[in-house]
Amino acid sequence: MADGLEELGEFGVIRLFREAAAPGEGILKGIGDDCAVLEGPPGSRLLVTTDMLLEGVHFLREGTGPRDLGWKALASNLSDIAAMGGLPWGAFLAVGLPGDLPLSWLEEFREGLLECSSRYECPLLGGDTTSSEKGVVLCLTVLGRVPEGREIYRSGAKEGDLVFLGRPTGESAAGLTLLLHPPGPPLSREDRQVLLAAHNRPEPQVELGLLLSREGLATAMIDVSDGLLQDLGHICEESGLGARVEARKIPITPSLLRFAAASGKDPLEPALTGGEDYCLLFTLDPKDQARARKAARRELGIELHPVGYLTGGRKVLVGEGDRWEEWSRRGYDHFRD
Amino acid sequence: MADGLEELGEFGVIRLFREAAAPGEGILKGIGDDCAVLEGPPGSRLLVTTDMLLEGVHFLREGTGPRDLGWKALASNLSDIAAMGGLPWGAFLAVGLPGDLPLSWLEEFREGLLECSSRYECPLLGGDTTSSEKGVVLCLTVLGRVPEGREIYRSGAKEGDLVFLGRPTGESAAGLTLLLHPPGPPLSREDRQVLLAAHNRPEPQVELGLLLSREGLATAMIDVSDGLLQDLGHICEESGLGARVEARKIPITPSLLRFAAASGKDPLEPALTGGEDYCLLFTLDPKDQARARKAARRELGIELHPVGYLTGGRKVLVGEGDRWEEWSRRGYDHFRD
Repeated sequence: MADGLEELGEFGVIRLFREAAAPGEGILKGIGDDCAVLEGPPGSRLLVTTDMLLEGVHFLREGTGPRDLGWKALASNLSDIAAMGGLPWGAFLAVGLPGDLPLSWLEEFREGLLECSSRYECPLLGGDTTSSEKGVVLCLTVLGRVPEGREIYRSGAKEGDLVFLGRPTGESAAGLTLLLHPPGPPLSREDRQVLLAAHNRPEPQVELGLLLSREGLATAMIDVSDGLLQDLGHICEESGLGARVEARKIPITPSLLRFAAASGKDPLEPALTGGEDYCLLFTLDPKDQARARKAARRELGIELHPVGYLTGGRKVLVGEGDRWEEWSRRGYDHFRD
Repeated sequence: MADGLEELGEFGVIRLFREAAAPGEGILKGIGDDCAVLEGPPGSRLLVTTDMLLEGVHFLREGTGPRDLGWKALASNLSDIAAMGGLPWGAFLAVGLPGDLPLSWLEEFREGLLECSSRYECPLLGGDTTSSEKGVVLCLTVLGRVPEGREIYRSGAKEGDLVFLGRPTGESAAGLTLLLHPPGPPLSREDRQVLLAAHNRPEPQVELGLLLSREGLATAMIDVSDGLLQDLGHICEESGLGARVEARKIPITPSLLRFAAASGKDPLEPALTGGEDYCLLFTLDPKDQARARKAARRELGIELHPVGYLTGGRKVLVGEGDRWEEWSRRGYDHFRD
């Protein structure tokens, strides 16, 4: 096993291919951000992102309804477009389908995909269809556009910048627990629905990304797919900085709070390390804080949540006052589990 | 089973999603050609294509060497860019990898991918990496560019246009037979190598596509991935025409001829219906025939092969003189096998 992929880890595999990337004409950013950035139509830049979803790894055919899966497959890619400040342009769907898959499954999957495509005005432009011997295989590629110079990279954060969340995290991880270990802790029907919806029907923050890009507010941005701490770590790595996350400032929704209480768990755990929230995590110059919060409230009717700040070190620490430490359990790494 | 995908077929699945495609700003062509066509950098158009390759369906981990697989995964997508007359721009690789996959396999796969990437100047720009419980899963998305108005669609053929092949077909199918049923018919080592290379290391005709686009020579174009007759059928369908393929004009390479003789088979079978040749199939106004053949000879040192012409009907017929009929065995349809 010493030569197997467990040793290398997901990010080792990415590094293996990253070393191999070459520059080229009209290419501003290749591997290493939420999207690749290329020269776009006059005055704009092209964004490209791709994601693979496998039955048995990312979803269970029985657990996730096909309609939710169709929504989520596109939504998770749109979240990468949002994380660069981009406007969705079009989507490509490659599918591997078992021959005995009921037609109704495929039709419901299509419905969910189209609901998301229509909500975010991102039409389906092409793809590939093949048979699969081993479960449903999905790969979505999504294109976006952003005005020249308005794209937001992971690498732009400065020491002293504030770290903001566009929405509280952790509900998706709680929803996944309910799916995987039914019935889960005693909860109201409403709380259950809220947590399951956060996991099954995540809403990418496209409008927020566009606002931050247009107003030149965010210095760096990423979407939370691997967990707040791990994704903040990506911003730190690309910006050559560290961060402090103030535990008492982490927003916890009422449903997540009740889920944690009923489970006898710390709600910070899913909020800091749960994945698949698909909300935006970004950094701001402190002088822009008031303007950003006001604009988000006025134009989108949402609250932005300050959760910490960037430091000169290289580590992401959690704590408060004069007690800061590394969080011991990090987000999910494929191959290491 | 009546409600399963076998009933619907591969093209039925494509239709299901095609009906759902919506138009959008800067989108010239969505589903229905070798690539989607969008507005590109100033003066140009953007081409996008995507392909999924599954272990057990498209390749066997033992049968295809990882190095060849890396080459072929990219090459087959570059062939779609070539079929629109485009210049490769960049590639995105999504991979699902079993945890026990040897690291050496991945490294060799990378080598082959990079050989192809370097040969066709198409750098790797991004992707996705995930664990897979059920074999290696690959999805390649490739971008290309073409000067505005120079892209070549399947739909542009006119009645009376001549049908040309950029290279003889059938060797790839013969190579696959050697792989799947070793040792196969008695053949020289050289013939074996030629046929296996045609299958394992196909060379997309990017330079020919660029030439035909630049000189405005081809009225319609496609790459041969499903078999000559089936892919010519796609040109006919999109152009609202039929075609006649002149059996005696189909080019048969010496290695394929000897393979067929040693197998007791008609070499026309793989030449007309074999898949994965990844050469170009295109139509020309008869007045441009001499100019095209001369340019291909002079600039690329290759021969173009006339194989038939387009008719007013809707069928693709094979024959000669006054005897024309539909070929009874067509190319491969996923789900129908």
